[in-house]
Amino acid sequence: MTASLTAITPPAWVVVFTSLLSDDSAGYGETAERIAALARQQPGFLDMKSLRDPATGLGITVSYWRDADAIAAWKAQADHLGAQAMGRSRWYRSYRIEVAEIRRARSGP
Amino acid sequence: MTASLTAITPPAWVVVFTSLLSDDSAGYGETAERIAALARQQPGFLDMKSLRDPATGLGITVSYWRDADAIAAWKAQADHLGAQAMGRSRWYRSYRIEVAEIRRARSGP
Repeated sequence: MTASLTAITPPAWVVVFTSLLSDDSAGYGETAERIAALARQQPGFLDMKSLRDPATGLGITVSYWRDADAIAAWKAQADHLGAQAMGRSRWYRSYRIEVAEIRRARSGP
Repeated sequence: MTASLTAITPPAWVVVFTSLLSDDSAGYGETAERIAALARQQPGFLDMKSLRDPATGLGITVSYWRDADAIAAWKAQADHLGAQAMGRSRWYRSYRIEVAEIRRARSGP
């Protein structure tokens, strides 16, 4: 078990990706793992946490980045573009993404 | 199953609450449900999604609000203050919160 959560210190940005898997999720898990590993290698990457409820198909991924440029570069990364297309055409029943600038952060205990 | 995700349209703010449950989580589930129901009644509330992995204790809750004032009012709400104190003293091994202004949002398919 992860012992603690690394604090996020502004300036930083967060991308919230929420999705509902479709019934056609063949290949999804492997791609999701590969893409997450690539994200961690991107310049400006800070952290990522991802959860999915197998019962409902609802997933939340939050990724943290140093600035908006780092997010734009990741959005345009080639392997990631391929995964995005697969997500739109097959894997996701519905999804939404918000790109947000962190104004305040705190952590504990 | 939820058929689709409601799009979030800026101007809007998001609060990302990430936590690891401690071994002393008695009463946590009931309070979490009650507090989530109260949040939905707050002025400026837009949406909330919450997931937790029972195997690791990791949880992510994202809540969406019309503006920073709505978030500040919710942070100071009396029942919520009580739950925050219980969380800090007993329920959470570790937690972090980011308050962020949404700059861009998209949804699909």
